[in-house]
Amino acid sequence: MPRIPFDQLHHALTDALLRLDFTAERAALCARLFAETTRDGVYSHGVQRFPRFVATIRNGSVDVHATPARVSSLGGLERWDGRRGPGNLNAHSSMQRAIELSHTHGIGCVALRNTNHWMRGGTYGWQAADAGSIAFCWTNTLANLPAWGAAEASVGNNPLVVAVPRRSGHLVLDMAMSQFSYGALESHRLRGEQLPIPGGFDAKGNLTRDPAAIEASERPLPIGYWKGSGLSMLLDTVAAMTAFGNATHQIPRDPARETGLSQIFLAIHPTALTTENEGGADSLDSIADAIVVSVHSAKPADPGKPVRYPGEQTLHLREENLRLGIPVDDALWQQILTI
Amino acid sequence: MPRIPFDQLHHALTDALLRLDFTAERAALCARLFAETTRDGVYSHGVQRFPRFVATIRNGSVDVHATPARVSSLGGLERWDGRRGPGNLNAHSSMQRAIELSHTHGIGCVALRNTNHWMRGGTYGWQAADAGSIAFCWTNTLANLPAWGAAEASVGNNPLVVAVPRRSGHLVLDMAMSQFSYGALESHRLRGEQLPIPGGFDAKGNLTRDPAAIEASERPLPIGYWKGSGLSMLLDTVAAMTAFGNATHQIPRDPARETGLSQIFLAIHPTALTTENEGGADSLDSIADAIVVSVHSAKPADPGKPVRYPGEQTLHLREENLRLGIPVDDALWQQILTI
Repeated sequence: MPRIPFDQLHHALTDALLRLDFTAERAALCARLFAETTRDGVYSHGVQRFPRFVATIRNGSVDVHATPARVSSLGGLERWDGRRGPGNLNAHSSMQRAIELSHTHGIGCVALRNTNHWMRGGTYGWQAADAGSIAFCWTNTLANLPAWGAAEASVGNNPLVVAVPRRSGHLVLDMAMSQFSYGALESHRLRGEQLPIPGGFDAKGNLTRDPAAIEASERPLPIGYWKGSGLSMLLDTVAAMTAFGNATHQIPRDPARETGLSQIFLAIHPTALTTENEGGADSLDSIADAIVVSVHSAKPADPGKPVRYPGEQTLHLREENLRLGIPVDDALWQQILTI
Repeated sequence: MPRIPFDQLHHALTDALLRLDFTAERAALCARLFAETTRDGVYSHGVQRFPRFVATIRNGSVDVHATPARVSSLGGLERWDGRRGPGNLNAHSSMQRAIELSHTHGIGCVALRNTNHWMRGGTYGWQAADAGSIAFCWTNTLANLPAWGAAEASVGNNPLVVAVPRRSGHLVLDMAMSQFSYGALESHRLRGEQLPIPGGFDAKGNLTRDPAAIEASERPLPIGYWKGSGLSMLLDTVAAMTAFGNATHQIPRDPARETGLSQIFLAIHPTALTTENEGGADSLDSIADAIVVSVHSAKPADPGKPVRYPGEQTLHLREENLRLGIPVDDALWQQILTI
């Protein structure tokens, strides 16, 4: 696959967004978030997804000019209306606001309704950690996963992001509530591979590692079976109630028109509680460092594969992609240049 | 199994705690939390665990007279020291404080360090929901679960609780990061049953449904494999940093001396953001109701088993146990009466 220097990719995406009537500043930020996602190796939610994003602008799901508006607030808690603006810009400004709130109130939470797909959720975790904040954020989605005990999709895969700042590498977890995405099922099927672990049910209701059988039944597994199913329901309910927005069952089932989402952005600022006598931010960093050391020192199941913390692999891929260029499929690259 | 009326059980536990030098008020509350856990059908963490709780008092891990003390605060975020007091009393007062903070600041968070096992985590979710609050809470634990890719226990099973108030039945999720507890593995083995799904690895590193093989390898599975492993690490790190307390790797590996834990209690008060024009608390209740309706209306995989929301079964068990009496093993009952 051709590799494009990061700046060139960012520039091309920015130009495409300018042609779609974004303002200069918003085009540059939106393009950067797409380019950084691919730079970090999350290929499914970066540049590869750009044509789908453009399609949602063209079909009216995304309003490129809309910016979020605050609806109500109490102290560290705020409710915002995303007004169907670009999902990644809405999410980025919401996390920025949650971080600001946490500096004043110790903890800050922005509940955002009426927004669009945020692309890579981890983006907002890295954003918070880069600002020195602990963060949680999640989004609801259209129904694409059967609740535990259901034979049809009834809950969303509602990605949850948890981020912790650490000078020598943030801990960032970005996980959907499904064990495998439909994209992952398709990739395995196209490679002719079974899943490494059961990923859903076949048409007879038996657990299976066969990706095609799960695609056919539309019954992928929630993580932890009944547990991930329950967590998905609760994350949806908290987001819809706090944002006073849509729940999963109200979101259009067509991925091209998946809009009106509810999201939560929560930031914690523990540094403010840690005096200089206690070592301030340094001492918090040491806590995270010691956890990483303890995880790394666990005896690995496979001697060739040391145990990793969430976010560790991202730094390797980021370094490699910045050094060698960002991998972008040639047809996709031509498409971006002509948007 | 004999069934004891709730009040009689509460009274007997209170008396036992008075004999262990609890003050009257603290004995009554601590006893109520144990009795309510068994009333709600969470048998593993209620009265059955009382003798272990008493043992931790007698071995000095739990100081019956210690109460939590605030260490530092900023707005809605507070750090408390549990001073090794009874874990359920410390947790109950921390959730109470988080709820109060959320009424002033919209969102409140108490990070508690140096505390003890909180028994049933769901207790504090029900407590918050009864007070009309959305809540998240979690605890770290001793290392009892291999991180993904590790051959030995290196992360905690760190139970996570999420609660949403709803007049006709709160949604309360209470889940550990392990797919099955050691208690559940033992129960299956004693009944001569395989697990319904893979629950861990055997000595050769293969996934297995054989509970005895997992007990022998000490390699139970995290929920969602790599996902629950990552979530466990992040919950531990957030708790230890925010509370400025111990992380899992610092907690004694002996369950009888598992002390010095770090916990998070987080409450959100969205009602304050919802004006009377928008329907106030009623309208938030409708959002939760509609989600429950949508989950209930999903086509079940087994026509005889309708899909349930987290917390639903608790209400059935609570009603039944209040009506028929709380099931308490006879030998355990005699033991409680003579503590």
